[in-house]
Amino acid sequence: MKSLGVIVEYNPFHNGHKFHLEQSKITTGADVVIAVMSGQFLQRGEPALVSKWTRTKMALLNGIDIVVELPYAFATQKAEIFASGSISILSSLHCDTVCFGSEQGNIHDFERTLAIMDSKKEEYDLRVQSYSQEGYSFPKASSMAFTEITKNDRVLDLTQPNNILGYHYVKSIGEQNSPMKAFTIERTSAGYHDPDFNTTTIASATSIRRALFNHGGQIENVQQYVPEGTYQSLAHYQRQAGGFHRWEDYFPFLKYRILCSTPSELAEIYEVEEGLEHRLQQTMKESHSFDEFMTRLKTKRYTWTRLQRMCTHLLTNTKKEMMQRITSTKKSEYIRLLGMSKKGQSYLKQVKKDTDIPLLSKVTAMESNMLNMDIRATCTYAMKFPEPARSEWMGLEYSKPPIRYNEETNTFI
Amino acid sequence: MKSLGVIVEYNPFHNGHKFHLEQSKITTGADVVIAVMSGQFLQRGEPALVSKWTRTKMALLNGIDIVVELPYAFATQKAEIFASGSISILSSLHCDTVCFGSEQGNIHDFERTLAIMDSKKEEYDLRVQSYSQEGYSFPKASSMAFTEITKNDRVLDLTQPNNILGYHYVKSIGEQNSPMKAFTIERTSAGYHDPDFNTTTIASATSIRRALFNHGGQIENVQQYVPEGTYQSLAHYQRQAGGFHRWEDYFPFLKYRILCSTPSELAEIYEVEEGLEHRLQQTMKESHSFDEFMTRLKTKRYTWTRLQRMCTHLLTNTKKEMMQRITSTKKSEYIRLLGMSKKGQSYLKQVKKDTDIPLLSKVTAMESNMLNMDIRATCTYAMKFPEPARSEWMGLEYSKPPIRYNEETNTFI
Repeated sequence: MKSLGVIVEYNPFHNGHKFHLEQSKITTGADVVIAVMSGQFLQRGEPALVSKWTRTKMALLNGIDIVVELPYAFATQKAEIFASGSISILSSLHCDTVCFGSEQGNIHDFERTLAIMDSKKEEYDLRVQSYSQEGYSFPKASSMAFTEITKNDRVLDLTQPNNILGYHYVKSIGEQNSPMKAFTIERTSAGYHDPDFNTTTIASATSIRRALFNHGGQIENVQQYVPEGTYQSLAHYQRQAGGFHRWEDYFPFLKYRILCSTPSELAEIYEVEEGLEHRLQQTMKESHSFDEFMTRLKTKRYTWTRLQRMCTHLLTNTKKEMMQRITSTKKSEYIRLLGMSKKGQSYLKQVKKDTDIPLLSKVTAMESNMLNMDIRATCTYAMKFPEPARSEWMGLEYSKPPIRYNEETNTFI
Repeated sequence: MKSLGVIVEYNPFHNGHKFHLEQSKITTGADVVIAVMSGQFLQRGEPALVSKWTRTKMALLNGIDIVVELPYAFATQKAEIFASGSISILSSLHCDTVCFGSEQGNIHDFERTLAIMDSKKEEYDLRVQSYSQEGYSFPKASSMAFTEITKNDRVLDLTQPNNILGYHYVKSIGEQNSPMKAFTIERTSAGYHDPDFNTTTIASATSIRRALFNHGGQIENVQQYVPEGTYQSLAHYQRQAGGFHRWEDYFPFLKYRILCSTPSELAEIYEVEEGLEHRLQQTMKESHSFDEFMTRLKTKRYTWTRLQRMCTHLLTNTKKEMMQRITSTKKSEYIRLLGMSKKGQSYLKQVKKDTDIPLLSKVTAMESNMLNMDIRATCTYAMKFPEPARSEWMGLEYSKPPIRYNEETNTFI
């Protein structure tokens, strides 16, 4: 079977994802598609709208054959680390190809850019460092440095978020000596940051999430932008869980964490740098909501996303020392299976003897600090609920087997 | 002015306290009474029913002239450390006398017992150690050892909670070379642990708290057992704060703390001993309420109170290393003033040049780890409230000046 990997958050799975998936299958001629999907917390430092289990169902209902979890240690990171973990998992699962959406839409541009950057690495690093020292955020400094050193030979617009991710996917494939072949498909519709709906069936995940919250959870407003399976899953989740997850749900716990820690304890948390611990405490004292807190905290030096990621690490109690140690290899220690179709199951049967890291159906099958972070992320994510739902949700992290989907009968087993 | 010190929690101030206070004034012939009162968390490891500010008002309305806070570092501890901090503060305020309630009711019995214990210290310590190793709780082991070594000369029933406290007050006075003279008054009514009302006007604080919670906060049920000032304060607090504080209010934060920490982080918390960190996590996973959690956690080795204190330290993030360091001197580093009558103000004017530790009207007046614990205790205590009340309550810890009471006009200034 020819296998294709995709790297996703599906927050939630929408028509744009569906389109990308179909195009990717055609482009790569794949028989089986593996999604490496972020768990409960996402790259922009936010809790996922709905749990990883519900998002797994959405994926299986819409043509994904295997869903595996991108560990927290990679999922909540800047593009470079996010990409290295994702690529390592797809490689370990022997994917033949990986296909990502990008603003650029042409894989050769990524490869050529990589070659240029390889040859000018030192110059690039110096410029990034210099702009950072001037107070620019890391993404801004990187983008400015890149623009300058490629100004006579410009091939890739690295101010675009999906181009940045794609660049790091291609780079990781090289660094990891993976035989995986990369493809890209041009993103056709709304830019990632577009806040409003602007086509009739495709809308960005951002605008879908906004519509879900702005209209008090009236999911009818997003029905036209998501496949039926997503719509039903969202409706079911809303009934069961009493709403979708958002940062404001976790604000009391973030406040508790920040104000009931000493500054030196806060400084041990990943991404709390340069005396931010004092600013965190001072700002939190006066803030009544997450949005207010973030607005007060924001400075030129740090992007909103960077600060949100830091807040996620504060919330999940993720320390520098641990995070740096477990991500230093740039590879995942395991492949955690969240769900599979019948075809996916056949594929896994075929490759599982041959994976270089363990394929886990349960978290209890392995003792690992990387895996403990995923467990802690689920404990944190479940804090939104009242008891007994909270305990039950935490328990699922240990007890729930991978979701099995029969694509022939269109039913979960 | 002849000054009397009392060591109190006033949770809440009731008719039994009033009786003890009046008897104490008569017995000691005092002109001015100073209460050293626990703050937001109490010796049995519980949040106070109402805030320290409201309890200060209750005290001032009922004949106390000065209320100072017993720091968290002493207030949430076993009798020995609790007593040392309390006595050190009353000594620093130049109290002439201290008067405590006891089951025994005769101060000579305490003094004689102390003399016996002094002469048999080694034997006593060995027996306590031996019983502890057999798995008895510390209070039980202490009580058994004491009974044995005083069996031919028995003078004080140290199975009684107020006798234990009194014993340590008298012991601390000696150890600290304080010129303060100790008095005791026999507790007339309900034993501390009596759960039900058994006289018409005097009831234990435990039974009053139980009545407040069991009847869904119908404070009319306790009216006959508390002075009018307490009754009005409770009614006001209930309206303003939406109810009284109890452990269940903090259970989500305790659960978050326990499940989102690593076992080794939990082991750093004060009173988390002997591998309890694993038991804490395992027990918490299955518990839907604080009461359920405690019931599952309880073993022969630890008393309920000991475990509740540990939970309080988990909740307030109080570490072993810090706690042991700051209580090693057995003396408070400051006297924090919570409230005073006009007479109290005159007294303070007279002694304040002469105190060996700073008298603080505001927490911002000093930088101290001991004081930081009090601030963190208030931050934790305020987590019960929704925003913006939560932030406002935390802010009071910094901004609120001592309460001033005019006893002539019976009004707060």
